[in-house]
Amino acid sequence: MGLFITFEGGDGSGKTTQIAAIKVALESRGLEVLTSREPGGTELGAKIRQLLLFGGEVAPRAEALLYAADRAQNIATRVRPALERGAIVLEDRYIDSSVAYQGGARSLGAEEIRELSMWATDRLTPDLTLLFDVPTDVGAQRVGGEKDRLEAEGLAFHESVRRAYLEMAAGEPERFRVIDAAAPIEQVTAAALAAIEPLLERAR
Amino acid sequence: MGLFITFEGGDGSGKTTQIAAIKVALESRGLEVLTSREPGGTELGAKIRQLLLFGGEVAPRAEALLYAADRAQNIATRVRPALERGAIVLEDRYIDSSVAYQGGARSLGAEEIRELSMWATDRLTPDLTLLFDVPTDVGAQRVGGEKDRLEAEGLAFHESVRRAYLEMAAGEPERFRVIDAAAPIEQVTAAALAAIEPLLERAR
Repeated sequence: MGLFITFEGGDGSGKTTQIAAIKVALESRGLEVLTSREPGGTELGAKIRQLLLFGGEVAPRAEALLYAADRAQNIATRVRPALERGAIVLEDRYIDSSVAYQGGARSLGAEEIRELSMWATDRLTPDLTLLFDVPTDVGAQRVGGEKDRLEAEGLAFHESVRRAYLEMAAGEPERFRVIDAAAPIEQVTAAALAAIEPLLERAR
Repeated sequence: MGLFITFEGGDGSGKTTQIAAIKVALESRGLEVLTSREPGGTELGAKIRQLLLFGGEVAPRAEALLYAADRAQNIATRVRPALERGAIVLEDRYIDSSVAYQGGARSLGAEEIRELSMWATDRLTPDLTLLFDVPTDVGAQRVGGEKDRLEAEGLAFHESVRRAYLEMAAGEPERFRVIDAAAPIEQVTAAALAAIEPLLERAR
């Protein structure tokens, strides 16, 4: 089995930039790396992403189920096959995102949302979850250009997402590493690589 | 509260024809009737239906979650509001379809599939479920024209779907009425209306 590492954090936390940098660093050591994102990691997921972000009104339970469907497809058709051949999978948002965005910040219960995603993925749990944490106002300033629906919902929403993430990290210290993502980019990358390093034996 | 009646049965069982006839009969008595189908009962559902029936490969759990998302949207945005204003809702396929098609005939467990749909609908249960039952070979002969993915899967699949439906009906005799859908159309309509009649008080 390879190594399944998930990248979590609010909008503007720099996750996507960090994934690219870490992919380069790991590949330079001859390791196979697959990067993946949800929603949108598969052809089906890209279509679901369109529905979710730019469609009309979506009922809260329908929204949660669409995220879960995307995740099911991504895990079954891309992530599990890669892990089975020993690759390192860097996943941009996973179950913790659903809990933080859908469960913590909206009306649906966090435990129900987690259970739904666990069912969708047939209970695939990350070996390591990196939480890129920034103060909410810093994250908001970083998000430039096109705003999607979630990003338009304001600081109070993002504040509750951040709080939900930090509570999860406190509750599962073995799986989570909280990284100060307000630091300079290179420093954040170094902290992320330091957290990954001890696990690399497994993927060799 | 109005009346929530679901129409179940395999492909070629004549459900859709019967819904149209029963709608006319009930409306002629001055009752408000909403017809609805899944997948596809809402704008979002129509898009999900395209993904499900004519898209590429879809992992089994992703498929089940997409059906559930469509259902969540349909129930929250169309069916519940209609029931709240006292209408009769005739629904072409509901949770029993998911169990029969996904749980009974495929690899996922029937109970998991039912629980998923119950979550999606916030536990909305039909007042009455009409099961239009035909021998599998009769149903197959009736299905003409364009074949979608499910219809192409052969008689053994349809036979297992029929068996799953009949077991559910036997297990919940209060909610189900099994109707011999191999009979002439008018006779089937009369049998369906006779099953609905005792419940109409509630929607008046």
